[in-house]
Amino acid sequence: MTLADDVLAGDRRALARVLTLVERAAPEAREILAALYSATGRAHLVGITGAPGAGKSTLINALAAQLRASGDTVAVLAIDPSSVFSRGAVLGDRIRMQDLVHDAGAFVRSMASRGAVGGVARASAAAIDVLDAAGFDRVLIETVGVGQSELDIAALVHTVVLVEAPGLGDEVQAIKAGVLEIADIVVLNKGDLPHADIALRTLTLALSLAQPAAGAAAWQPRLQRTDALSKHGIEGLRAALDAHRTHAREGTRWAEQQAVRAKAALVSELREQLYTSFMEQLPPAQLAEIVAAIAARTRDPYSTARHLLAAHS
Amino acid sequence: MTLADDVLAGDRRALARVLTLVERAAPEAREILAALYSATGRAHLVGITGAPGAGKSTLINALAAQLRASGDTVAVLAIDPSSVFSRGAVLGDRIRMQDLVHDAGAFVRSMASRGAVGGVARASAAAIDVLDAAGFDRVLIETVGVGQSELDIAALVHTVVLVEAPGLGDEVQAIKAGVLEIADIVVLNKGDLPHADIALRTLTLALSLAQPAAGAAAWQPRLQRTDALSKHGIEGLRAALDAHRTHAREGTRWAEQQAVRAKAALVSELREQLYTSFMEQLPPAQLAEIVAAIAARTRDPYSTARHLLAAHS
Repeated sequence: MTLADDVLAGDRRALARVLTLVERAAPEAREILAALYSATGRAHLVGITGAPGAGKSTLINALAAQLRASGDTVAVLAIDPSSVFSRGAVLGDRIRMQDLVHDAGAFVRSMASRGAVGGVARASAAAIDVLDAAGFDRVLIETVGVGQSELDIAALVHTVVLVEAPGLGDEVQAIKAGVLEIADIVVLNKGDLPHADIALRTLTLALSLAQPAAGAAAWQPRLQRTDALSKHGIEGLRAALDAHRTHAREGTRWAEQQAVRAKAALVSELREQLYTSFMEQLPPAQLAEIVAAIAARTRDPYSTARHLLAAHS
Repeated sequence: MTLADDVLAGDRRALARVLTLVERAAPEAREILAALYSATGRAHLVGITGAPGAGKSTLINALAAQLRASGDTVAVLAIDPSSVFSRGAVLGDRIRMQDLVHDAGAFVRSMASRGAVGGVARASAAAIDVLDAAGFDRVLIETVGVGQSELDIAALVHTVVLVEAPGLGDEVQAIKAGVLEIADIVVLNKGDLPHADIALRTLTLALSLAQPAAGAAAWQPRLQRTDALSKHGIEGLRAALDAHRTHAREGTRWAEQQAVRAKAALVSELREQLYTSFMEQLPPAQLAEIVAAIAARTRDPYSTARHLLAAHS
């Protein structure tokens, strides 16, 4: 039995080990990913994003419990680019998600992908494939905020959920307008707070403005009010996820997403392998000399790269 | 006169055009960047980051005015990964920074770098080089939040400023612990709000815990309380920036940063040129066929990339 076989057989320790190898961009990860790949494509991939303070982790804990109660297995992947520096956020998330830790049908993982070559999006895409191949019915991918990597990850999932909360400040309102356009489901969490009614009306208006003009077959984004702490609205959120999954599978979204992911995975691999094999040819002493010359401004990186390519290929 | 010459001569319209070319990753950008490169390395590069709602734009406006009053020229680069979807945030920033718009010694630019090949960090690094070459004494680089790209950009600047505000919620507190470790100056903005005293004490404690044990020559991170709207504490912030610049130049930080940037620029260029020249060899029909096979799971991206490399090099 290889490690890949163990993952396919449902071994959770093997799964955790493979995710660690992927996170570290370990050399053996590539072969395992190749072996797992044919088992991917079955899970419902759900991206859950929103500004800090919106209560994403609590909401995901409640949603995962709801999905488990309906018989689905659930993996949660929390993508945390800052956690290489500090385990604070990760630890906090684990505490919030403790309901899931002792459930064999659930799996929670935080990714500190800073160390991975190629960055967050590359390691995250591979980790999603691993969780998909491991047989989870749903993979919930939590990202913080509105950075480039969140937008990259949004392109890889079937369903994008944007979590908002009343009163997160005016800059958040401005940013929200950007992500709103890619959201399939918008959650107003902390729906019991003062100003929630105003926030709900604002979101309704913003959604109607942000979404492109839609044909009859287009998905109409759902707005769901929740209060994750008291579990209010979580059943409605699950129903909205199911409705969007059905819509995606019956329409073109599911197939489009497969093609987008396939191309992204190939391009990411090509870039990585091209760079790795090129650098293997370049003597470290020569590289150090070139970097020193660029730092001293006697060479520039742009024409230097061109000369190196011409010389070594 | 080439466009690069115009930038070096202080032509602001040429500068804006070059930044647009860089942002779009236009083919002619590479040659211009190569021509400008020898003029880089003089500006004080300051990264300014913090969660949405901390008041970064207002603070930067006040800081830039303070720096201008002391005779320095100032460029502000606001990196906004979400702005391809919506101009909301950018417009808001421009309004906040309107003091700078009519000042010939100041320059404000928002970057929507989503479209650039290689992502935010690559386009931002090039834009910083362009502003540096254009002769600004200070380049202030504003990033939102705590994503991967913020950490990447932090590695490219001389001085990292983290902006906090009282009462941004407990998730922010957790994330803060991560970025705190790379901050040279921590600003408690909105220092007139209730709870500011508590926040200041918390930050003082967190700073003392987050920073590694320091030798005599190490920089002791400064904590500066400000209220950007009333301009309180901005003179102190400028003094802290000057102190850190002096420290960096007299110690090893400045030279280290040159080497880090030089290597990052070379690696980024090599990756890009390797990928571009490889894809030029690959017939589009063959690429489409491969992507379809990967989407159908009859091929996997990992071994497919290896076979393509072996066949085409």
